[in-house]
Amino acid sequence: MSTPGRLQSLFDALRVLPGVGPKSAQRMAYHLLERDRDGALELARAMEAAIAHVRHCERCNTFTEDVLCDLCASARRDTSLLCVVETPADQMRMEQTQTYAGLYYVLLGRLSPLDGIGPRELHLDRLLRRATDGVVAEVILATNFTAEGEATAHYLGESLRARGLRVSRIARGLPVGGELEYVDSGTLAQAFIERRPVT
Amino acid sequence: MSTPGRLQSLFDALRVLPGVGPKSAQRMAYHLLERDRDGALELARAMEAAIAHVRHCERCNTFTEDVLCDLCASARRDTSLLCVVETPADQMRMEQTQTYAGLYYVLLGRLSPLDGIGPRELHLDRLLRRATDGVVAEVILATNFTAEGEATAHYLGESLRARGLRVSRIARGLPVGGELEYVDSGTLAQAFIERRPVT
Repeated sequence: MSTPGRLQSLFDALRVLPGVGPKSAQRMAYHLLERDRDGALELARAMEAAIAHVRHCERCNTFTEDVLCDLCASARRDTSLLCVVETPADQMRMEQTQTYAGLYYVLLGRLSPLDGIGPRELHLDRLLRRATDGVVAEVILATNFTAEGEATAHYLGESLRARGLRVSRIARGLPVGGELEYVDSGTLAQAFIERRPVT
Repeated sequence: MSTPGRLQSLFDALRVLPGVGPKSAQRMAYHLLERDRDGALELARAMEAAIAHVRHCERCNTFTEDVLCDLCASARRDTSLLCVVETPADQMRMEQTQTYAGLYYVLLGRLSPLDGIGPRELHLDRLLRRATDGVVAEVILATNFTAEGEATAHYLGESLRARGLRVSRIARGLPVGGELEYVDSGTLAQAFIERRPVT
C-alpha cells in the first residue's frame, strides 16, 4: 500500500519541528486529518503570517513586527543597563521574572568554534559598538551556563571590560527550593566557591 | 514585554498538534523563526495541500487522494478477507507486516459509550452491509486491545456472526522477544489462557 503523495509530504514536512521524528510526524498528520482540519489550516496560516511579518529588532535582535521591538522603543526602561542573552526565548524568560528594567541584546547564538561560529559570525562587533555608545554603563551577561555559553560570557567579559565597561554575570548556585542532597556536585561546588557574605 | 501578535498566534496555533503544550509550542515557533523559515513555509504548504486533497476512501475510509484507495482499487488483493481496524495509522502498521493480502475497513474510531459514540455514530451499518456483500467470507477484527477496542470487537463479532460470517480476532500474547519476567500479568494470563497446541 502506498501512502497518498500529499500525506507522505506532510509526514516529511512535519519533521522540521524540533523533537519530531518519523513516528510523531505520522501521529500528528493523522491527528490533524482525522480530527482537526480547521486547526491545521489555522496553523498553516499562522505559520505563513509569522514568517512573513516577524523579523528581528534592529537594535537588540529579538523578534518584533516593527523596526524596533516594544522594549527598545519604550521610554520606561533603564538605558544604562544592557543584558546579553543567547536567544529571544531566553529574553522572554528573563522578562517573565519581572526583576530587570534595562534593555537587552540578543546574540542569536553563542560562540562555538567547533561549529565554526566565532566572534565574527556572531557579529559581536555590533554588540561592542552598542555597549560603548556612552549610554550603557553596565552589561549583564546572561548567556547559558553551558560550555559554549560560558565561553561566550568569558570572551564578552574580557572585551567589554577592556573598553572600560562595568560587566556582571548572572549568579550560579542552588535553585530556589533546591536541596544539597539532590543537586549535582558541580553546581554545589560553584555555590560554595561563589558564597556570599551574610550581613 | 508583549510578544509580537503573529508570534503569539503561532504559539497558540501550534497547540493543535497532539502532545504539544505551551512550552513546546514556544520552542517550535522560536526554532522555525530562528533557523528554518523555509522549512516552516514548506510545512504550511504541505498542510494546506493535504487538507485540500487527502480524503477518505469511499469503500474502506482510509486516506486517499482518489475516490478509492490503492488497496480497494487493486486487483491483487483477496476480496474474501476483510480486516477491521480503528484508524488509517493502524491499517498502515498492519500493511507494514506484509502478512495480509485481503482488504480493510477503517472504523475511524471505536465504540465509546461514555463519549456518546455508539454503533450509529460509528456507522457500523455501513460495515455490516459491506461485510454481507456476498464476497467477504471472513472478517478479521484488529481493533486495539483497550477496553474500547475490545468492546468494539465484541459488538462486531456478535453482529457479524449473527449474519453467518466467519469472524476472527488477532491474537493476544507475549511480544516477539518478550520475557515472562517483564511482561505485565494481564498479558501473561491471556497468553496462558489462549495457549496453542504444540504440533
